[in-house]
Amino acid sequence: MTDALALAADLIRCPSVTPEEGGALVLLERVLSGAGFDCVRVDRNGTPNLFARKGPKGAARTFGFNGHTDVVPPGDAGRWSVDPFSGEVRDGMLWGRGAADMKSGVAAFVAAAVAARLPDDGAIVLTITGDEEGDATDGTVALLDWMEAEGEAMTVCLVGEPTSVEALGDTMKIGRRGSLTAHVTVRGKQGHSAYPERARNPVPALARLVDRLSSHRLDEGTAHFGPSTLAVVTMDTGNPASNVIPAETRATLNIRFNDLHSGESLERWLREEASRVAEEFEVGVDLACRVSGEAFLTPPGALSGLVGRAVEAETGLRPTLSTTGGTSDARFVRRHCPVVELGLVGPTMHQVDERVEAAQVEGLARVYGRVLAEFFA
Amino acid sequence: MTDALALAADLIRCPSVTPEEGGALVLLERVLSGAGFDCVRVDRNGTPNLFARKGPKGAARTFGFNGHTDVVPPGDAGRWSVDPFSGEVRDGMLWGRGAADMKSGVAAFVAAAVAARLPDDGAIVLTITGDEEGDATDGTVALLDWMEAEGEAMTVCLVGEPTSVEALGDTMKIGRRGSLTAHVTVRGKQGHSAYPERARNPVPALARLVDRLSSHRLDEGTAHFGPSTLAVVTMDTGNPASNVIPAETRATLNIRFNDLHSGESLERWLREEASRVAEEFEVGVDLACRVSGEAFLTPPGALSGLVGRAVEAETGLRPTLSTTGGTSDARFVRRHCPVVELGLVGPTMHQVDERVEAAQVEGLARVYGRVLAEFFA
Repeated sequence: MTDALALAADLIRCPSVTPEEGGALVLLERVLSGAGFDCVRVDRNGTPNLFARKGPKGAARTFGFNGHTDVVPPGDAGRWSVDPFSGEVRDGMLWGRGAADMKSGVAAFVAAAVAARLPDDGAIVLTITGDEEGDATDGTVALLDWMEAEGEAMTVCLVGEPTSVEALGDTMKIGRRGSLTAHVTVRGKQGHSAYPERARNPVPALARLVDRLSSHRLDEGTAHFGPSTLAVVTMDTGNPASNVIPAETRATLNIRFNDLHSGESLERWLREEASRVAEEFEVGVDLACRVSGEAFLTPPGALSGLVGRAVEAETGLRPTLSTTGGTSDARFVRRHCPVVELGLVGPTMHQVDERVEAAQVEGLARVYGRVLAEFFA
Repeated sequence: MTDALALAADLIRCPSVTPEEGGALVLLERVLSGAGFDCVRVDRNGTPNLFARKGPKGAARTFGFNGHTDVVPPGDAGRWSVDPFSGEVRDGMLWGRGAADMKSGVAAFVAAAVAARLPDDGAIVLTITGDEEGDATDGTVALLDWMEAEGEAMTVCLVGEPTSVEALGDTMKIGRRGSLTAHVTVRGKQGHSAYPERARNPVPALARLVDRLSSHRLDEGTAHFGPSTLAVVTMDTGNPASNVIPAETRATLNIRFNDLHSGESLERWLREEASRVAEEFEVGVDLACRVSGEAFLTPPGALSGLVGRAVEAETGLRPTLSTTGGTSDARFVRRHCPVVELGLVGPTMHQVDERVEAAQVEGLARVYGRVLAEFFA
């Protein structure tokens, strides 16, 4: 059987910082092909992606796993206690960039998939991308597009992102909030600070807009989601001269929204508020919105029950069903089939000295193995 | 008699961009010494300054002129129609950096001073600095400090800044608004946009403060001053990551204030507003204020009457008594004696192709000559 921990360490040794493939998908393709999987590289616009299936195409019961092998940059390697790409196991921990997010998760589901016994009408599909941390436009989306074109499908899918908070399996994601980023530009008329009446200062207009948007309570939360949040993350003018009123100023805001909103409804609201300020201050207000994911929910049911039972059997914990956190590729998968996310304890992800408990990598592989066993039972 | 236009052109040929002396004060010292003035270079901390007096020290009637020979940089010389330091006269205009602000003004009062006939109890004092456009900490201030130490004094003073708006002499300044610049820093706690409840975003706090300060009407103006104004000229965070809530954000504002306020009263108000926001948002708000000049007024009277009559006799115009515009060295002189400002038409100052009508340079010298003649009559 494939050793999940050893495979995770091997993957960490592949320097697959987005958008570099770094040898990670090549390694997985070799492992999976050797275990009887049909593998296809589904690269698009230079983004490396791997599709793998064992069992008949279009099988009635097809269990999907999704994950990514790309990692965020290690930053200053000198600040790490270990070489971030050494995949070292020390003090019971597996260290390195990607240890938590999410090479260990990929290694765990690959190990479980390789070990699984499939019934005649059963198949396992793995979709593994090399771009989840970047723009993600040609990653999981490309894999799903290709699957659709090829008549490949999944009955359900489990994303192996590090969802656990303190103990392995304590938290499962059954949805995610949506995310909208808006860039606001307010245009006025430049002038001299000594004669503000001859200028049209865009700065107070932006301040008013930011105050209004920040003060607005979007909602009180829903059954499975917390309240939506809005964070203005930057306001920038870049005017070094205190005697000059600038012509233009900008802000960026990020909204994490629940299932009471859509990117469209929020953009409409933002445009209304922008117009109101534009009128009040007689300035131009431009708005550019980008929705990186809509809010979605896989309502608690068969899939979350299946995964929850596997976690409980292995760890004794019953996972909390959560929808918090950032976005993940589950936002793409959910358009194709029910999807939940369950993985390792993630607090060190994206940080210096990223690491996970070595024993938990094997533990997660066993959880995934139980999920497959019950699914195919 | 010294030719004001020729002297102005000679001064323009001295490249006296702040803080460079550029030969301008050396030239003036030669001209004035040759005309019987006692000249002293009153340089301080590398800033060149020239004091000149004709007539007895401490004379009962001492008329002062104040001006500067330093100029702002020409910028891209290729955008000029002439060499900015050629002092060319073409199409009836004197062209070059400093033509308006204010080498022609200096040339005009030097010409008038050289030509003036002094009674026994009369004297003329010229204070000419090489740093008005820069920090101005060792310019006119140094000259006035030195005069006080030496027992030198002026009964009244005329600053030759370009105060005219459309026609020579149409506007005289009898005071100036004060100017206060404040740098605001709001400190919160960094975090992830997906979890704003764990961070303390300083951006909305700054927006609220900027909105409040900008919306506040400081006053309705006074007898000789327009309403005070407040302009927030920049808000800057410099956070490129839409998924990060920043720890800190900054703004700069500039207040131009009339004689209802002082730098101190405004700073007190700003600190109150800053504290209010700090409390509401549980953030830190730091404020650094710098008052570059207090508001001041030389009430309409003997001096403005004298200058007004001279303008009217020469041009037929009766100058408007104004307190608008930026700051000038009159803000220092006013602590020593009554001061007004009268000079050329200034709209091209600090711009490409700075220029003045050549005839007006001589016209201004005649106005100054009439001022001296009546003062000493």
